[in-house]
Amino acid sequence: MQTPSPQTWSQRFETALHPAIALFNASIGFDIQLIEYDLTGSEAHAKMLVKTEIISPEEGEAIVNGLETIRQEYRRGDFNPGVEAEDVHFAVERRLTELIGDVGKKLHTARSRNDQVGTDLRLYLRAQIEAIQGELRQYQQTLLSLAEDHVETLIPGYTHLQRAQPLSLAHHLLAYFDMAQRDWERLHDLQKRVNISPLGCGALAGTTFPIDRQYAAELLGFEKVYGNSLDGVSDRDFAIEFACAASLIMVHLSRLSEEMILWASEEFSFVTLNDSCSTGSSIMPQKKNPDVPELVRGKTGRVFGHLQGLLVMMKGLPLAYNKDLQEDKEAIFDTVNTVRGCVEAMTILLSEGVNFRVPRLRQAVNEDYSNATDVADYLATKGVPFREAYNLVGKVVKTSLAAGKLLRELTLEEWQAIHPAFEDDIYAAIAPQQVVSARNSYGGTGFDQVHQSIARANQALGEG
Amino acid sequence: MQTPSPQTWSQRFETALHPAIALFNASIGFDIQLIEYDLTGSEAHAKMLVKTEIISPEEGEAIVNGLETIRQEYRRGDFNPGVEAEDVHFAVERRLTELIGDVGKKLHTARSRNDQVGTDLRLYLRAQIEAIQGELRQYQQTLLSLAEDHVETLIPGYTHLQRAQPLSLAHHLLAYFDMAQRDWERLHDLQKRVNISPLGCGALAGTTFPIDRQYAAELLGFEKVYGNSLDGVSDRDFAIEFACAASLIMVHLSRLSEEMILWASEEFSFVTLNDSCSTGSSIMPQKKNPDVPELVRGKTGRVFGHLQGLLVMMKGLPLAYNKDLQEDKEAIFDTVNTVRGCVEAMTILLSEGVNFRVPRLRQAVNEDYSNATDVADYLATKGVPFREAYNLVGKVVKTSLAAGKLLRELTLEEWQAIHPAFEDDIYAAIAPQQVVSARNSYGGTGFDQVHQSIARANQALGEG
Amino acid sequence: MQTPSPQTWSQRFETALHPAIALFNASIGFDIQLIEYDLTGSEAHAKMLVKTEIISPEEGEAIVNGLETIRQEYRRGDFNPGVEAEDVHFAVERRLTELIGDVGKKLHTARSRNDQVGTDLRLYLRAQIEAIQGELRQYQQTLLSLAEDHVETLIPGYTHLQRAQPLSLAHHLLAYFDMAQRDWERLHDLQKRVNISPLGCGALAGTTFPIDRQYAAELLGFEKVYGNSLDGVSDRDFAIEFACAASLIMVHLSRLSEEMILWASEEFSFVTLNDSCSTGSSIMPQKKNPDVPELVRGKTGRVFGHLQGLLVMMKGLPLAYNKDLQEDKEAIFDTVNTVRGCVEAMTILLSEGVNFRVPRLRQAVNEDYSNATDVADYLATKGVPFREAYNLVGKVVKTSLAAGKLLRELTLEEWQAIHPAFEDDIYAAIAPQQVVSARNSYGGTGFDQVHQSIARANQALGEG
Amino acid sequence: MQTPSPQTWSQRFETALHPAIALFNASIGFDIQLIEYDLTGSEAHAKMLVKTEIISPEEGEAIVNGLETIRQEYRRGDFNPGVEAEDVHFAVERRLTELIGDVGKKLHTARSRNDQVGTDLRLYLRAQIEAIQGELRQYQQTLLSLAEDHVETLIPGYTHLQRAQPLSLAHHLLAYFDMAQRDWERLHDLQKRVNISPLGCGALAGTTFPIDRQYAAELLGFEKVYGNSLDGVSDRDFAIEFACAASLIMVHLSRLSEEMILWASEEFSFVTLNDSCSTGSSIMPQKKNPDVPELVRGKTGRVFGHLQGLLVMMKGLPLAYNKDLQEDKEAIFDTVNTVRGCVEAMTILLSEGVNFRVPRLRQAVNEDYSNATDVADYLATKGVPFREAYNLVGKVVKTSLAAGKLLRELTLEEWQAIHPAFEDDIYAAIAPQQVVSARNSYGGTGFDQVHQSIARANQALGEG
Repeated sequence: MQTPSPQTWSQRFETALHPAIALFNASIGFDIQLIEYDLTGSEAHAKMLVKTEIISPEEGEAIVNGLETIRQEYRRGDFNPGVEAEDVHFAVERRLTELIGDVGKKLHTARSRNDQVGTDLRLYLRAQIEAIQGELRQYQQTLLSLAEDHVETLIPGYTHLQRAQPLSLAHHLLAYFDMAQRDWERLHDLQKRVNISPLGCGALAGTTFPIDRQYAAELLGFEKVYGNSLDGVSDRDFAIEFACAASLIMVHLSRLSEEMILWASEEFSFVTLNDSCSTGSSIMPQKKNPDVPELVRGKTGRVFGHLQGLLVMMKGLPLAYNKDLQEDKEAIFDTVNTVRGCVEAMTILLSEGVNFRVPRLRQAVNEDYSNATDVADYLATKGVPFREAYNLVGKVVKTSLAAGKLLRELTLEEWQAIHPAFEDDIYAAIAPQQVVSARNSYGGTGFDQVHQSIARANQALGEG
Repeated sequence: MQTPSPQTWSQRFETALHPAIALFNASIGFDIQLIEYDLTGSEAHAKMLVKTEIISPEEGEAIVNGLETIRQEYRRGDFNPGVEAEDVHFAVERRLTELIGDVGKKLHTARSRNDQVGTDLRLYLRAQIEAIQGELRQYQQTLLSLAEDHVETLIPGYTHLQRAQPLSLAHHLLAYFDMAQRDWERLHDLQKRVNISPLGCGALAGTTFPIDRQYAAELLGFEKVYGNSLDGVSDRDFAIEFACAASLIMVHLSRLSEEMILWASEEFSFVTLNDSCSTGSSIMPQKKNPDVPELVRGKTGRVFGHLQGLLVMMKGLPLAYNKDLQEDKEAIFDTVNTVRGCVEAMTILLSEGVNFRVPRLRQAVNEDYSNATDVADYLATKGVPFREAYNLVGKVVKTSLAAGKLLRELTLEEWQAIHPAFEDDIYAAIAPQQVVSARNSYGGTGFDQVHQSIARANQALGEG
Repeated sequence: MQTPSPQTWSQRFETALHPAIALFNASIGFDIQLIEYDLTGSEAHAKMLVKTEIISPEEGEAIVNGLETIRQEYRRGDFNPGVEAEDVHFAVERRLTELIGDVGKKLHTARSRNDQVGTDLRLYLRAQIEAIQGELRQYQQTLLSLAEDHVETLIPGYTHLQRAQPLSLAHHLLAYFDMAQRDWERLHDLQKRVNISPLGCGALAGTTFPIDRQYAAELLGFEKVYGNSLDGVSDRDFAIEFACAASLIMVHLSRLSEEMILWASEEFSFVTLNDSCSTGSSIMPQKKNPDVPELVRGKTGRVFGHLQGLLVMMKGLPLAYNKDLQEDKEAIFDTVNTVRGCVEAMTILLSEGVNFRVPRLRQAVNEDYSNATDVADYLATKGVPFREAYNLVGKVVKTSLAAGKLLRELTLEEWQAIHPAFEDDIYAAIAPQQVVSARNSYGGTGFDQVHQSIARANQALGEG
Repeated sequence: MQTPSPQTWSQRFETALHPAIALFNASIGFDIQLIEYDLTGSEAHAKMLVKTEIISPEEGEAIVNGLETIRQEYRRGDFNPGVEAEDVHFAVERRLTELIGDVGKKLHTARSRNDQVGTDLRLYLRAQIEAIQGELRQYQQTLLSLAEDHVETLIPGYTHLQRAQPLSLAHHLLAYFDMAQRDWERLHDLQKRVNISPLGCGALAGTTFPIDRQYAAELLGFEKVYGNSLDGVSDRDFAIEFACAASLIMVHLSRLSEEMILWASEEFSFVTLNDSCSTGSSIMPQKKNPDVPELVRGKTGRVFGHLQGLLVMMKGLPLAYNKDLQEDKEAIFDTVNTVRGCVEAMTILLSEGVNFRVPRLRQAVNEDYSNATDVADYLATKGVPFREAYNLVGKVVKTSLAAGKLLRELTLEEWQAIHPAFEDDIYAAIAPQQVVSARNSYGGTGFDQVHQSIARANQALGEG
């Protein structure tokens, strides 16, 4: 390893960094991922320096051309700075000076690495958030398509993992659509706190040069600029807020994953997994494992951990920039990669990896007591106070369980022995199809409602 | 302890809960805090039931009057349900039935505890968020007033806790104003995801009754209603998103706390603490401790912990409601109380507990090398490439340090020996007042900029 | 609220605390829980002061008697200090001086609240750890009794929640026994880092008085004393290490909870829950919910959150004591209470709340392909390389699934068509009872092994 | 990318994995780090298979030789399996079969990837824990050497970051020695829960082969074997317990880091940093930044995050192995690397990066009121009750502060005006050297005590 020369910084320094310390400090190993954003940010800075006459047009042109040369070198795989470069910013500046000579040294006029790295990170994250939003849209589209196929498919609905009331499978899937919609909107809202330019905040206090921060921000597509330079270089709220939004995406994916794992079990048997999205065991030849949802569920903690890591990093830091902030990058990169990988994997799983076993589902909703609430509602519509009706039905269930009978197997006499208000229409009222259909309140599982939900979902996708 | 009778739920149950299990399950010990919101939510539900003719106007009136009676009893301290009540919802329903008889049992028609508790929690959190926003405004106002008093007060600016460049103290304080502004806006944004009504989602699937969810939502001031009943009863995103916003508030307060603690130290001596906001030692009579900022800093982890606790609670839960969700309340209550207490305490500390020691600050900015960047900038404006200028100045600092001289103590000859571009105006350029003043880029610490920042801050407070 | 007088601390202070700040700072609201330990610690301190002749025997006796009087007052409910007392230590000292006059003021000689509160917290935690260990023993005993009843009961074993290989139910239950055994041992190991006395470390630097720390430590049952006074007053490792051990207990309980919830579902139907340990729904009369395991699972995040909160609290604190440390107490108290409540609730659930449905379990293990590995093992013992045998069996499973046949339903001809090595003993080899029995490797599910495991478990309980 | 063939697992599978899913599932990208442990574990397994006559000695020799060949290939850089290998275990098995033919397929007899990966991870972690312990020893040795040099160097001691009482610098450094000693012991204790062999637990239930788990465990240096196969394959307690111990190491390093950062500030100026361990600014030529301690402090959150991630991963997982567990590895690898890097960096910083400024420290302890407790103690030894003495001294401090006098500058008359018990020896009693020296209680900062502490520390290093 070539260690940095003492002249990495100013001539105040006489001796070089201890090699192990140089390695410990260096961020080039991971912040090279920001290079495209770093080049773009530097180009905008150079153009701004020209516009404000801090450098000449010729100098500006030389710098921009040099930066583009580096971009091409990087894309070709020819730009591979080592640990002696310390970070991507120094690596670029040095290469630039090699390429275009002393004028390269003027690029850093009126800025600092503190505002530069903040600019890079925001450009990166802005792009990644857009990418995640795009992937969420595909995931939502997949959920919606499945829902459209399964409006009439019934599935047991659960609370406490106990059969509660039968549902339209579409309704169940659309719950995840709505969660993803919230995720999308949350990203949208926080994007406005990501998309603010710190460029020109300098090291901490602004600069003595007559810069035009708004101009550079416009070139880079930022919505606005930080109004306080200290805040601009030391704010990492946007990274934390993103990590929280990412954690919520993972919460939602982990819930769907859990359900997929349950549904693929022998006991539930609600779905079968296709070979293309499941794996086997090294010693149990019959196994077909739901690795994708398990791994998604398993990766949830990783994202929560990054959120916590970022919060801890920021706690109690005095203003303004501190080296601790270097730790933001790996956490954000891995959060982005994890969330993108998980959304993509779940989309593939839903679109081609999983088949709902409709006959099994139909059988399931016919063979339980999840229509008991409808008996109580039936009585309530006949004027029996709900709490009383509910108590009666509890008794019926207990008796039926003991007798090994389902509710639909009770005779009218048996019904009327329970309460005289029962009439022949009780059987229709408790058939699963009717039970679902009847829950026609706004947002309920009734088929009419589900069709409206689908329409709203299509509209949401159309807008976004 | 009186244990619940087997008839707590339906007659399916024969034996009572084990007393220790009853105690373990019961939430009445803490969810009683939601009672006012529970009553309000129930009144709206009753009015909706009347409007949709599910119950009669007389029944509705009796219910509403009964609920108001309970409210008065609670406010007088006369309503103290024990563990046998299980939760606030059952406690209210039972008392209602005692007060108005069987009609009380009709209140629960077309709803479930699952949508009911979600409604209560959202009403509570909506109110608390507004309260926190109000407290943030007072905190911002206090920061702003301090800033207005200290535009011309200089303070060393730091990066890496090393003196970097001198600042206007107002500029430093306004960085915290801007963080709080972001906090305020974040709360504003997430409020729209709090302020959605789950009422009418029923247990999980909606209801068979012809309810009018929008009407109930309007009565309660909700902006909209959940579009999917499963999502409505099992969504706790809003609680997590709030806990994240609360964590960020704590990050910001912890940073200011850290600075207060530093500033109050013997070594910094930038502030003195008033007796009304500091405490002593039990054995060291000379001590005056900055307990308030220490405690605020110490409480930061508590809020981060609640955020993690909520995320963990939600991870991997199958739809829809699960008892795990009962754990949301204490986490949210304590987060609210902690944040409110900390914002309030910091506001008091800033407004009456702390005095900036202006002479000491003046002395500090005059006796360091934090004007070195200005020497480099000076050379850069005279045409020396920035990187070269920077290297030269590093050398000057090293020499000066060795000689025990400050930069302002160098003679013009010494300056010119370093570089011939130095002229007599170098002394003016590096006087702290000028150093600050010259950073006149947008958002910088230059006095003109600070006045503009103050104007923007006043405008923001006026709008909010 | 009565606010503290300025003389709470030394006469350096002139004005009283702002009432809101007094409330914010006060810990008496929760540290009163430490009072018995505080009194015990103070008594030992007083006796040590007598032994070292720092106070007279008469003074020591007056102090000890006064402290015992306060203990009686507290136990009778007559000692209820308000917020003006700030914390339990001041509350006791003041009451003592009221009771016995000026000699009470001598108690605080040669100690500080910093070492005092550390002593109290360690005494509290030491006792609570013993209590948790005792509760773990009851939990283990319950698991072991259940295991003894169910050696011959078979249950499907899962990996990836897919049926993998059948198990003895006892073997499954004993896995949780072993986890609890590790929890017990971990508590045992960390107890030695809890049970160290900081008493006599003073505020941070020790004391000028000729104290005898070892003597006081012996009186209090501490194993040793802190060797460095700075470390003694600022160490909270023991609290964090405990919170980690508590988190692991919760991990284990959450896993068993998850399984209970699955087993109680309609789909698994492996257990039924007794009325005494389950609850109903407010609107679905048929529901019987596994609230206990859900709530245990839900409380897991709470304990993880406390662990994180404590870590965050300690991060980056300079030596020695800082007020931040006050935040340790509520986190520890709630961790203790949560863990104790959860272990107790799970013990009750296992001992009287849950019934295994043996016939259903028997049916389950007879109707799947979880004996497929045994076919591969069968071939491997006949000399077919394992990997090849495994591949063959995978093919058999695929064919059988397609044909709707279980492995035991294949004819000998069909077996031999697959591989000539199959003989008539294949049927015996794949019967569930035999499949379980054959896994007779150490720690495996074979019945002989399970009996040995039970013997080891009984021995472990006997030792602990 | 070459995607896995459908025959990755059994012939139950017909179609290949979706390429994106294959990539998502594959762990080879990171678990290749385990290869040396995987090879070692496989060799022991093969030898055990020979000993128990499950395979022949010739087969065993072929396998062991093949595995050694792979080890050499890997060390030469010639073994680079791609994503199609899925994981390190399959990669090795395939290469082995390429090298030695069908006999390679026999290696996997009587084990599963579930017990195999658990074995690998424990072997890895066991070695890393030993390495960390070794690094802690060097760190402790460095602290101890520094302490030996600075017994007589005084430094202000702080509580609440307020000057409290002067200290021997050695005493301060030894507090960190003691924390590291606890860290070392904690690793030692948990090692016994790491060093347990799961090999032979099979997929979950043990195996039908007559294996000898104890023999394989002995070959691998394990202390014992898991007693329950389900527990053996699904236990990750040891990883979490390690992550907690790692978090505590980081807590301690972050505290020392915080102090280093404070001490290196202009305001404290207690230390100077050498060029070899500090860095500069890109625009502020005078800057010399304490990057090492800042980065260590910043990395603290990362380790806390991994701890949380691992806990979340395990929460609520049903037995036995689930794919979620794959996520354990990256968290553990990064925790190990982070902790090792930080301990090493701090050791270098302490040994060659930092110089204590002894004259500045001497001046500091002479110019504050941190000897006020000694005045109170002085009076207490003359019979004034401590609380009364304390109050008096508070008054003295206030008066002195107002008069701009230090305590040592008060005349004897002034002292006696405060209390007649003061005599001429008060001046000696409050000289810093004497103040430190007098705190001669066990573990205190008195020089005699510090010498004893140094002796104990040397002994501890000698033992470990």
